[in-house]
Amino acid sequence: MISDNIAQMERIFHPRSIAIAGASNREGNLGRRFVTALQSRGFEPLYVINPNASEVFGLKSYASLQDIPNDVDVVIVSTAPGSVRQIITDCAEKGVAGAIIFSAGFGEVGEEGKKKEAELVEIAHRGGVRLIGPNCTGVYSPSARVATTTTLPVESGSVALLSHSGSFAESFSILAGTKGIRFSKVVSCGNQCDLNAADFLEYFGQDEETKLIIGYIEGMKDGRRFFEIARRVAPKKPVIIWKGGLTAAGARMAASHTGALAGSSDIWRALCRQTGIITVDSVKELLDLVLTFYYLPLPQGKRVGIISGPGGFAVTTSDACAKYGLELPEFLPETQQLLREVIPPVGGSFRNPADVSIKSTIQPELFRKSIEIIAQAANIDMIYVIRGMPEKTFFDNMLEAGRNTDKPLGLFIFRQEVISEDYIPLLKAGIAMYTDSAMGVLALSRFARYAEFVRNNYRI
Amino acid sequence: MISDNIAQMERIFHPRSIAIAGASNREGNLGRRFVTALQSRGFEPLYVINPNASEVFGLKSYASLQDIPNDVDVVIVSTAPGSVRQIITDCAEKGVAGAIIFSAGFGEVGEEGKKKEAELVEIAHRGGVRLIGPNCTGVYSPSARVATTTTLPVESGSVALLSHSGSFAESFSILAGTKGIRFSKVVSCGNQCDLNAADFLEYFGQDEETKLIIGYIEGMKDGRRFFEIARRVAPKKPVIIWKGGLTAAGARMAASHTGALAGSSDIWRALCRQTGIITVDSVKELLDLVLTFYYLPLPQGKRVGIISGPGGFAVTTSDACAKYGLELPEFLPETQQLLREVIPPVGGSFRNPADVSIKSTIQPELFRKSIEIIAQAANIDMIYVIRGMPEKTFFDNMLEAGRNTDKPLGLFIFRQEVISEDYIPLLKAGIAMYTDSAMGVLALSRFARYAEFVRNNYRI
Repeated sequence: MISDNIAQMERIFHPRSIAIAGASNREGNLGRRFVTALQSRGFEPLYVINPNASEVFGLKSYASLQDIPNDVDVVIVSTAPGSVRQIITDCAEKGVAGAIIFSAGFGEVGEEGKKKEAELVEIAHRGGVRLIGPNCTGVYSPSARVATTTTLPVESGSVALLSHSGSFAESFSILAGTKGIRFSKVVSCGNQCDLNAADFLEYFGQDEETKLIIGYIEGMKDGRRFFEIARRVAPKKPVIIWKGGLTAAGARMAASHTGALAGSSDIWRALCRQTGIITVDSVKELLDLVLTFYYLPLPQGKRVGIISGPGGFAVTTSDACAKYGLELPEFLPETQQLLREVIPPVGGSFRNPADVSIKSTIQPELFRKSIEIIAQAANIDMIYVIRGMPEKTFFDNMLEAGRNTDKPLGLFIFRQEVISEDYIPLLKAGIAMYTDSAMGVLALSRFARYAEFVRNNYRI
Repeated sequence: MISDNIAQMERIFHPRSIAIAGASNREGNLGRRFVTALQSRGFEPLYVINPNASEVFGLKSYASLQDIPNDVDVVIVSTAPGSVRQIITDCAEKGVAGAIIFSAGFGEVGEEGKKKEAELVEIAHRGGVRLIGPNCTGVYSPSARVATTTTLPVESGSVALLSHSGSFAESFSILAGTKGIRFSKVVSCGNQCDLNAADFLEYFGQDEETKLIIGYIEGMKDGRRFFEIARRVAPKKPVIIWKGGLTAAGARMAASHTGALAGSSDIWRALCRQTGIITVDSVKELLDLVLTFYYLPLPQGKRVGIISGPGGFAVTTSDACAKYGLELPEFLPETQQLLREVIPPVGGSFRNPADVSIKSTIQPELFRKSIEIIAQAANIDMIYVIRGMPEKTFFDNMLEAGRNTDKPLGLFIFRQEVISEDYIPLLKAGIAMYTDSAMGVLALSRFARYAEFVRNNYRI
């Protein structure tokens, strides 16, 4: 049964053909986005179903799914809600693998809509069709040339994302894309009337392209199964989830957004601890964690060595380490001795945090040399570098240090806009760049905690 | 006594003449920065004291302070630590108002250094001289053409900043400057052997240019006085402080950074609550608060109306409101009725959060019209707008909405790099732009709490 599921998922995420129902050339038509997105990737064959058009964006338009002379793996449904039932009936007859229902106006608007969803599922399952949605943007699968909008990264990567919100799925893929992050599979599952978060987690868990799984989740349809799967997957692939609707106000909104029933914050956190899910409370936390997990090797422990230019940030970053449970051991005598040979005595410090002194503003190699020394220290698992307003020569030195170091290396720079595409080489050299000193520490502390979880739970 | 203090502070922050001791033309000389910074602002008259040079950056170099034929208000001391005592002796003889000791190697390196500081203070006070530092960059006072480095904003503004860290003072001024924030007075006070945080808070409290006071503080030299002054100042000018050294690890680092004795986190927070100081835990929190306090009018209460495009963020932002103590009341029937005339029924919501539906991606005026309706709602004190990846037309609509609304208006955009100089017009139209949805809510919740504090404590 599971292997059947997976095979069908494969057809949905790597379809050989797609039809879009309800797309038109009309300005303001919402289905057009799928046509232009798939065309921008060169996806073929691509069909349009629209009885009121003969041609849409250069594609022949068919009056119905049945009129398409070839097999269709996936149908994207972007019609008025009243037409969805007929299309799903047609899907079941034609034997498509999956229908992605972009149309809204179902479970999220009330009981009547929930009933309609149940009917759609019944019709679909009779023909072996699985449904994604309604009220979702569906699948972005770059290695299969499948995209939901033109601005998503073209290249594929190793992060899988599942999201109850379509706009979150797209926006986060684009945002993370500007930091060089690339995705294996992304799905927005909306009201999840059929396929739900647990199904996608299971699929991503065994997907060879996927190394890291992240999610934005509102409500659980099949919570027990989700956590069982998470428990199996999390020791092999990190599972990072942002959970919406953990307060009464949020849950009320979630109900009207995706018809989700949300749970309590305490229960959620307890379940995450038990199953190894890493949970976050904001999009910034999520992005910091993705950068950390994507670009850094797992740390051997939670002992951090800090190298700082600005003294104030050495203080507050030490505070953040204490707050988030990272350790700042004294450097060993031999490490201190080596640092003394590099760092100027006036204004410098050879303890932990090491202070490379104001001289480092004109001698950025002080950072590189200190990193290379601390990278060899037996009692340090991770390195955290703090810099004020760096010039290019600093980055050149960091690039070299990053390439010469196999310990996780974080970098906080006091300039929020610094994480731009210009710095992708630094990220790719194994340096996680953070825009807030304390939040960088928070990300590293979660990374260290996950590494410990893996050491305790990993089984082949 | 206080008025004498203030008069002397005025001479230090608005000096008629400055001398820099220890600057040279030599590459790597640290005192040069003050010469070039002051020259870049056209500050005059400016003198250099260096017995080993005849000319520095085109200025005549004097062998000693006594050789300068005119009065000097401020001396910046950037010599080897061993020469500082002689310079301060000269300052006392000449009757300068203040000496800023940039040189390091005093209280922050140990007991011997602390003793030397006490001697410097004794010598200085005999001649009526006040000391800033040692181990500090001193004063940035844009309306007096005084700057510590060339890259600081030229224009003056209404934010005063006091910092134990020189690099924090400069970096934060530059960072906030990219968001249009301008400063009245900035001081880095280093080891604060003489003038300390309490003195500067008192001065900023009565300074007419200053409307908002922020600080990065490591240790208190005169804690009781600091809190007494804060209690008087906070109801009239917000006082926002980031306190370093609140953990054992941070305190150890603070001791070696500025020789500060740091306190406990619990005591600090209790004192802040009692005196009205707003405290933050990261630079990002500080920046979000400065944007909020600088650009928005005080709210009348803590009731927020949310207007969202992306549904997922409406959920998580509702969660954040509950977490941080903001209320999300139902919109009144008349407000809902007006929203119904604007927002499309399919995919839209007229409750709170209002969901302007996916149509808003092509009709950004849906945001503006909804803001204008909610701005009139009797039960809403603040408006929070959430948008995914906006185009220019969205900003045009926001600009108009911001100008037409006198309620505090926050905007979260799902793109971290969005807060750039291009968006300063939006900020100036009274829209605080945040790069994280939850952190924006946190900033607004603190803003509302401060507004309540003012209502309860303000006295003319």
